[in-house]
Amino acid sequence: MEIEIATIGGYEEVGRQMTAVRAGDDVVIFDMGLNLSKVLIHDDVETERMHSLDLIDMGAIPDDRVMSDLEGDVKAIVPTHGHLDHIGAVSKLAHRYNAPIIATPFTIELVKQMIQSEDKFGVDNDLVKLDAGDSTKIGSGLELEFVNVTHSIIDAINPVLHTPEGAIVYGLDKRMDHTPVLGDPIDMKRFREIGREGVLCYIEDCTNANKKGRTPSENVAREHLRDVMYSLEDYDGGIVATTFSSHIARVTSIVEFAEDIGRQPVLLGRSMEKYSGTAERLNFAEFPADLGMYGHRKSVDRTFTRIMNEGKEDFLPVVTGHQGEPRAMLTRMARGETPYELESGDKVIFSARVIPEPTNEGQRYQAETLLRMQGARIYDEVHVSGHLNQEGHYEMLKALQPQHIIPAHQDLAGVSGYVNLARNEGYTPGRDLHISHNGNMIQLVD
Amino acid sequence: MEIEIATIGGYEEVGRQMTAVRAGDDVVIFDMGLNLSKVLIHDDVETERMHSLDLIDMGAIPDDRVMSDLEGDVKAIVPTHGHLDHIGAVSKLAHRYNAPIIATPFTIELVKQMIQSEDKFGVDNDLVKLDAGDSTKIGSGLELEFVNVTHSIIDAINPVLHTPEGAIVYGLDKRMDHTPVLGDPIDMKRFREIGREGVLCYIEDCTNANKKGRTPSENVAREHLRDVMYSLEDYDGGIVATTFSSHIARVTSIVEFAEDIGRQPVLLGRSMEKYSGTAERLNFAEFPADLGMYGHRKSVDRTFTRIMNEGKEDFLPVVTGHQGEPRAMLTRMARGETPYELESGDKVIFSARVIPEPTNEGQRYQAETLLRMQGARIYDEVHVSGHLNQEGHYEMLKALQPQHIIPAHQDLAGVSGYVNLARNEGYTPGRDLHISHNGNMIQLVD
Amino acid sequence: MEIEIATIGGYEEVGRQMTAVRAGDDVVIFDMGLNLSKVLIHDDVETERMHSLDLIDMGAIPDDRVMSDLEGDVKAIVPTHGHLDHIGAVSKLAHRYNAPIIATPFTIELVKQMIQSEDKFGVDNDLVKLDAGDSTKIGSGLELEFVNVTHSIIDAINPVLHTPEGAIVYGLDKRMDHTPVLGDPIDMKRFREIGREGVLCYIEDCTNANKKGRTPSENVAREHLRDVMYSLEDYDGGIVATTFSSHIARVTSIVEFAEDIGRQPVLLGRSMEKYSGTAERLNFAEFPADLGMYGHRKSVDRTFTRIMNEGKEDFLPVVTGHQGEPRAMLTRMARGETPYELESGDKVIFSARVIPEPTNEGQRYQAETLLRMQGARIYDEVHVSGHLNQEGHYEMLKALQPQHIIPAHQDLAGVSGYVNLARNEGYTPGRDLHISHNGNMIQLVD
Amino acid sequence: MEIEIATIGGYEEVGRQMTAVRAGDDVVIFDMGLNLSKVLIHDDVETERMHSLDLIDMGAIPDDRVMSDLEGDVKAIVPTHGHLDHIGAVSKLAHRYNAPIIATPFTIELVKQMIQSEDKFGVDNDLVKLDAGDSTKIGSGLELEFVNVTHSIIDAINPVLHTPEGAIVYGLDKRMDHTPVLGDPIDMKRFREIGREGVLCYIEDCTNANKKGRTPSENVAREHLRDVMYSLEDYDGGIVATTFSSHIARVTSIVEFAEDIGRQPVLLGRSMEKYSGTAERLNFAEFPADLGMYGHRKSVDRTFTRIMNEGKEDFLPVVTGHQGEPRAMLTRMARGETPYELESGDKVIFSARVIPEPTNEGQRYQAETLLRMQGARIYDEVHVSGHLNQEGHYEMLKALQPQHIIPAHQDLAGVSGYVNLARNEGYTPGRDLHISHNGNMIQLVD
Repeated sequence: MEIEIATIGGYEEVGRQMTAVRAGDDVVIFDMGLNLSKVLIHDDVETERMHSLDLIDMGAIPDDRVMSDLEGDVKAIVPTHGHLDHIGAVSKLAHRYNAPIIATPFTIELVKQMIQSEDKFGVDNDLVKLDAGDSTKIGSGLELEFVNVTHSIIDAINPVLHTPEGAIVYGLDKRMDHTPVLGDPIDMKRFREIGREGVLCYIEDCTNANKKGRTPSENVAREHLRDVMYSLEDYDGGIVATTFSSHIARVTSIVEFAEDIGRQPVLLGRSMEKYSGTAERLNFAEFPADLGMYGHRKSVDRTFTRIMNEGKEDFLPVVTGHQGEPRAMLTRMARGETPYELESGDKVIFSARVIPEPTNEGQRYQAETLLRMQGARIYDEVHVSGHLNQEGHYEMLKALQPQHIIPAHQDLAGVSGYVNLARNEGYTPGRDLHISHNGNMIQLVD
Repeated sequence: MEIEIATIGGYEEVGRQMTAVRAGDDVVIFDMGLNLSKVLIHDDVETERMHSLDLIDMGAIPDDRVMSDLEGDVKAIVPTHGHLDHIGAVSKLAHRYNAPIIATPFTIELVKQMIQSEDKFGVDNDLVKLDAGDSTKIGSGLELEFVNVTHSIIDAINPVLHTPEGAIVYGLDKRMDHTPVLGDPIDMKRFREIGREGVLCYIEDCTNANKKGRTPSENVAREHLRDVMYSLEDYDGGIVATTFSSHIARVTSIVEFAEDIGRQPVLLGRSMEKYSGTAERLNFAEFPADLGMYGHRKSVDRTFTRIMNEGKEDFLPVVTGHQGEPRAMLTRMARGETPYELESGDKVIFSARVIPEPTNEGQRYQAETLLRMQGARIYDEVHVSGHLNQEGHYEMLKALQPQHIIPAHQDLAGVSGYVNLARNEGYTPGRDLHISHNGNMIQLVD
Repeated sequence: MEIEIATIGGYEEVGRQMTAVRAGDDVVIFDMGLNLSKVLIHDDVETERMHSLDLIDMGAIPDDRVMSDLEGDVKAIVPTHGHLDHIGAVSKLAHRYNAPIIATPFTIELVKQMIQSEDKFGVDNDLVKLDAGDSTKIGSGLELEFVNVTHSIIDAINPVLHTPEGAIVYGLDKRMDHTPVLGDPIDMKRFREIGREGVLCYIEDCTNANKKGRTPSENVAREHLRDVMYSLEDYDGGIVATTFSSHIARVTSIVEFAEDIGRQPVLLGRSMEKYSGTAERLNFAEFPADLGMYGHRKSVDRTFTRIMNEGKEDFLPVVTGHQGEPRAMLTRMARGETPYELESGDKVIFSARVIPEPTNEGQRYQAETLLRMQGARIYDEVHVSGHLNQEGHYEMLKALQPQHIIPAHQDLAGVSGYVNLARNEGYTPGRDLHISHNGNMIQLVD
Repeated sequence: MEIEIATIGGYEEVGRQMTAVRAGDDVVIFDMGLNLSKVLIHDDVETERMHSLDLIDMGAIPDDRVMSDLEGDVKAIVPTHGHLDHIGAVSKLAHRYNAPIIATPFTIELVKQMIQSEDKFGVDNDLVKLDAGDSTKIGSGLELEFVNVTHSIIDAINPVLHTPEGAIVYGLDKRMDHTPVLGDPIDMKRFREIGREGVLCYIEDCTNANKKGRTPSENVAREHLRDVMYSLEDYDGGIVATTFSSHIARVTSIVEFAEDIGRQPVLLGRSMEKYSGTAERLNFAEFPADLGMYGHRKSVDRTFTRIMNEGKEDFLPVVTGHQGEPRAMLTRMARGETPYELESGDKVIFSARVIPEPTNEGQRYQAETLLRMQGARIYDEVHVSGHLNQEGHYEMLKALQPQHIIPAHQDLAGVSGYVNLARNEGYTPGRDLHISHNGNMIQLVD
């Protein structure tokens, strides 16, 4: 059976991931993501109303026109998890394919919400839920399996396409976490079995491929967070926390420690409400029954007013804005645009890293400066990455023993660390180690 | 009562700490440290045989000739903890003063060992043990109290000199740790009491005064270490760890986790044997009964031979060399100068940070490069600092409410972060915030 | 005669410089500057209409309320050169003092323009021109001398106040340049004479005090610029340059080299028109007779349209926007908001450094990214600093041999390099080396 | 005619360059270099006596065993210039090939000296001089042409192999310099002609491919150097300069400016004597008739003694040691191991950049620290790179319009900037843009 892989998006950048695998006459698409930075660099772009071709020209979504070169029918669109760089182009591209979208329940729910807010295109592909650990038949003689992985969002999987020529393991995005706080540990046992059965190709998340050692478990971030928050137990002023809204495990820890130190947590900001609300409704997280989640500006401001009236010392707002995004809740607070009044000595906990890019760094710096001008004290980098460092990559290669490797999710400089380590393990560029780029086709079996 | 403070060493650098406080006719000296980097920059200096004046000229030990300007008698020499930058000049300077050396038991033991290895001077000052939490009378009407603090070495205290004019709190070196793994948490309750009783002057450790947020607890490092070591449970080759030899809490964690993953730990290198052996003899740490500790090169190499014979997969050597020091054990291993043979895939865990100075960075890079050339994989920065970050400083000021502050343990650029935060709290340079330098006198009460 | 110095602004930051010297009953104020970053961090502040007290609260202008503690009459306000951090608060503060503003002709002209655009206060202090090299009597028995220096703006001087107790040399801002391209070299001969006559106090510009070596001459930047521009002689598309608008020597070089490579230079943007136009009218620079300078958006856009019609290859627009400022001309060009169309291969020369602060770095990154998205190629850092590096400081100390030194124009970390070098030269903090802060008084002679 | 290219060394690192081109039955080898850092990481390696296979195992010289896969006869070995990373393996590998070594006169002379100091192998290949601008026939129907380029060593060329299928341009190493101080400008006219004739393949020096803009001309470094040295005209103590010994243009400028400021230059250190002496004998540089050059330690120390006797203020030693190499002359001076006594205020000019690698940075830091401990003042980075930045790469592509490109002289991360710019120009990896690695074969025509 012919096996061909089209590396469509996310092979020269982080963002707008999209990869298609053709096995015989059947094609499976993994991820359809958005490169948000290509949107934000422009001042007033609203993607909801834009046509996909314009977004392709901007470099915001994958240029899927290369799909016409793949001689086969798309049988499934498979987003791996709910981050925008993996699902953010579904509403712009999926309708072109007569195929269901297959994903885990939490991811499906986020895809559904995105499709509903789309203004330009009507996307009516079937939305099919498949649980981590389960499999489903695809096309003629293929099987799609979801292996449970751990990432900075819940219900993440690595899809494995079983073909007669061996398995194609699509390895985006993950960290090797045996104590992930929420959800199950990464299923290394299953990866090792798949490795023994035979892996034709492994497509890997190289985000951190230039970083030494092992990405710490979410449990390490949790203990760090506990240490920070417990140390503030006696403080009788305002404490505010911010983190990635989609990082439900982290939000859960913040909520729990807030209660431990005698404060009522409350989630504020549109994304906070969306992700945590979804996680709660789908029973992925158990929040306190009375946990407030507010997204609309009016209800947020009403909540802030209530907090100011009842006493800041009894609350812990968990808000959006960890990157200093100009319109996020924390930035609004820093500018004094909300009823919440920061005072000298109040604490702001960034349970996040600054994404290392000058625009982010500038915005985050401005947000921190404005916060400090009001007397706030900053705790930052209470965080661990969601992506494998080098030692995790070595361990995956040992488990899977793939015939071919395709590094992804970075530009060439970012991929270079992965190429070095794969060469250490005996792979050779051009032979079984494929340094690819957007729009490229790789013929594995012909 | 006249109160005068002489800032003798460590006020324009990190290293060779020494401060003298005169209260009326009585003088107490806090710390007599060594600036090791001033020794190592020269090729073949052996400090044991050198005269103190030569070491003063090199900038290696405090220039205590300024002591002659203090009109009083030295009644005590008080090292705060056992690190070289706090005790390393005792053997060169203490004999000039007719006064006992008062310190906690672990520190006293390290001072004793240093005095014994001194070749130039005979130091026969009385060595007096005082436990953390205890007090003793000094001179006429003074009292010296040891408040328990947490640092990267056990049995560290902050000495407090109670005078009729208020307390002088000598705040070097500490982290605010409520879960220190070994020993008691920092005694903030006592600091707050002292604050209420009235603090005339607070001398503070500014090592991390330019760093945001809160230094994590040793417990966070421990969880990080656990995550790294447990993840290696299935590895069947060599695993080696290195850390600060004097960091008994860390060594204890490494030893414990080594056993958890089925390996026999063994401590190798002169400093490893010295510090851990001392800690065990004095009952500060409980190590497994059969834990091997070897310092002499011959016994170390014999141990390596045994490990190679019995199987690397059953052992976990904990060795010196975390900074890539040219003659340390790990560097010797990296150069293939020991019987221990590294193989491709073997793991080396640096439970330490590179001290950020180009010489260290170069040496550490060389050690890592040599290790990698033999196939080793590096896990680094499994560590937390032993010094207060900015939020700890704010908390100490809130607890102590000192009338005067003297920042220490850094050069002027390093002190700048502390000056900013003290100004935020209402202190003013030249009035109650004293930016000092080596050899300076500060008259607090006259 | 009593001599007292009030360090009012710019002693804990770069920006809003202001220093007052009292000699007997007479007071002279040096500089009244603006800290622009404290304005820009807020979204929509228009300083023209703001009250000085609000600007003081924001940290934007010096807090001159400390002036009431100086027992004497202000006899002169002396801005050293035309940069905003030295003259930007004149329109907000000068009217409070019954004293003339004395400055060099170019600086006076810029002060005049600023006063005219002020909406809140009427400032009618006398504007008195004094040429570099000249002197004038002040108060009873004082003399104010202007010593010619070299900086990144023309007609910069260091004012020297001659008192019976010795000279007070106000050393902000300068570079030691013997080949400054425009204007005379720094007058080191006069500084050496003043040194021999006796200097009581030297107030120094520490901007680059942590930088090794010697700041290169403007002539080095000119040769670098020539090398870049001549290398583009054969390019037949668009070339755009940007630099500090007030840097007339640099603008002159760009204009000259543009003509050398067969292109017509044209200066675009409000500040470009303002500074270069002023320099031309006052005969500080000789520009080609037909050099276009346009500030109003309409005339700028008309010029761009003409350039596009006549052919980009014949022009070289010199525009504002070297820091990526959101509303500057280059950023507008990058966003496609002007009639000038960038094409693949077009060149953009930044004859400037990014001011190292995250906000600037983020904005500059965005501007460059937008330029690159249109195919532009970036040449950057074709520049030298306008401030003394360490070797220049050593040379000034050798020339002046001051009794007292007051470092200025930086925060404490920035000042630290200067303190180290002054200590090398025998000065001692607290005795003759005064580490000051905003609002502090230093009594030199009483 | 079949054309095949073997990328043998320097395709995953900087250093040990070697590339072989097969055109039909004829093979030409470009460069045979050494990776010195792989030698120096070991403590006591003397390469002169080592076997090539051991050096290959160390990664120090190219692994030329892949040459056996090339079906053709080596007709020429062509080093491009005299730097060690291009000629340093000639004495270890050239004797295996029955072919002449063809290079420019200066390079040939350096190769000859290296062969003479080789202890292990007898290398007796013919040494053939070919001037820049000249051509020679090679094998059957090939022509080898030397195009003059500008680099940080004199007499550098880019060899062009003219084949019936088009030219192979081997582009290592160069800067695009139209005012190179010594020697002729880069011959862009000839490159453009070759481009019009048709270039099959261009192998490019990617050292600076991640750097923006244009590498400045040597003339810019010269003006910078002039500015530094002229500013020291009045200094009456010691001035010492250091630079790359092989950088004859720079040495010439230092010598000239030394005389301009009234000092007698003298070149000290083994490499200084070797390179400058060779350049003088071959008439590449005109030094003052009485310029002293001393290499042996004894004659160097004798010279230092003479300088100390006659007065440091009349001399300017130009010495080895710009990277802080432990055994170089400047490091010996810094350690006080020579008769030259540094005093407070003496100047040391580093006309070089620190090669950005932690070992160098550490050694250089140590050397500077030791110099400063003796009172020396450091001027550094008076330098420009010898390699093309991005704009030079664009210009070369425009001139040559090659069908194929092979980036070289960097690891993958270093190459990434080049791949991006080549993609901007329409090249595609895997098609006409070949990202290679050591030991790889690229079939261009079959």
